[in-house]
Amino acid sequence: MKEKGYVQIYTGNGKGKTTAAIGLAVRSAGAGYKVLFAQFVKGQPYSEHKALEKFENITVKQFGRKEFIHSKPSEEDIKKAKEGYKFVYNALRNDEYDVVILDEANIAVFFKLFSDDDLIKLIEIKPEKTELVITGRYATDKLIDKADLVTEMKEIKHYYQKGVMAREGIEK
Amino acid sequence: MKEKGYVQIYTGNGKGKTTAAIGLAVRSAGAGYKVLFAQFVKGQPYSEHKALEKFENITVKQFGRKEFIHSKPSEEDIKKAKEGYKFVYNALRNDEYDVVILDEANIAVFFKLFSDDDLIKLIEIKPEKTELVITGRYATDKLIDKADLVTEMKEIKHYYQKGVMAREGIEK
Repeated sequence: MKEKGYVQIYTGNGKGKTTAAIGLAVRSAGAGYKVLFAQFVKGQPYSEHKALEKFENITVKQFGRKEFIHSKPSEEDIKKAKEGYKFVYNALRNDEYDVVILDEANIAVFFKLFSDDDLIKLIEIKPEKTELVITGRYATDKLIDKADLVTEMKEIKHYYQKGVMAREGIEK
Repeated sequence: MKEKGYVQIYTGNGKGKTTAAIGLAVRSAGAGYKVLFAQFVKGQPYSEHKALEKFENITVKQFGRKEFIHSKPSEEDIKKAKEGYKFVYNALRNDEYDVVILDEANIAVFFKLFSDDDLIKLIEIKPEKTELVITGRYATDKLIDKADLVTEMKEIKHYYQKGVMAREGIEK
C-alpha cells in the first residue's frame, strides 16, 4: 500500500460479507497490490477460488475442513484454524502482503478456535501500510473498537425464507 | 444459470455494495456464468475494471460521466443513464447474460435519471434463469418489495470520520 493501511470489518447476518471481501481482493489486485485471501472455518472449493486464481498477486489459503462446523468444532477444526492464524501472523510480521483478508475470522472466534484478543494481536503487529480486512458474523465489540471501518450487512429480506439453498456461482 | 434466477438488492449507507457486486461478478465468472457488470452514475476508470477485464465472460459497461453528480444531473448524465438502461433492457430481452449487475442503479433513480418503475420493468422482463443484482443507496420501498434478497450495508464506523479519502485499490 502506498498510504497508511486500515482495519476493516464486515459483519452482520446479511449476505455479502465474503462477497465484498472477494471484490476487495480483486480491486486491490487490479491496483497492483499483493493480496492474501485467508479463509477460516470453510474448506470447501468455491467458485471464487477458481476465479481468484486468475490473479498472480492474490494468494488464496483455506484453513477449514470441507464440512462446516455445525455445533462443536472438532480437533481438526481447531488445528486448522491455529495453523491459519500462525500463517497470517508470520505473513504480517514479515510484511509479505499489502492487503490481508481474514474471511470468516469472526466465526472462528465465535467457535472459540482462537480469540478476539488473538485478532487484536494481528492488528497490533500489522505493518502500518497493510490493509487488514476481517469478515464474519458476530464481530465482538472489543474487536469493533479496534477497527477503523465497520460495516454491518443486515438482512432485510432473504430468499432462504422461500427455501432456496446456497447456489454455485452466486452464494458459493 | 442452471436454476431460477433471483433479484438481489444491496443498499444502505455502508461500505461494500459495489465491492460485493464485483465479488459476485467474479464468483459467477468462476462458475462459468456470463456476467454483465453495468455501472451507472460513475464513469471513472476504477481498479476493479482493470481486474474484471481479466475474465472473458465478464462484460463491464459504464454509463456515467467521469465526474460524480453532486447536486443536479447534467443532460449528459441523463443521456448516459438512459443509454445504459436501453442497453440493459435489450440484453435482458435477448437473454444475453446469466448474471446482470446494475451497479449504482438506485443512485440513478435517486437522481431521477430513470425511475424505480423502470427498474421494476427490468425485473418483469428478465428471463427466468437470469440473476439480477441492483446496488446503491436509497433503494425505494417499491423496488425492495419486488426483490427476493435485500441486504442493507449499514455503516457502524467509518474512517471518513477521520478524514481519509477514497483510496485507489481499496475504495475505487
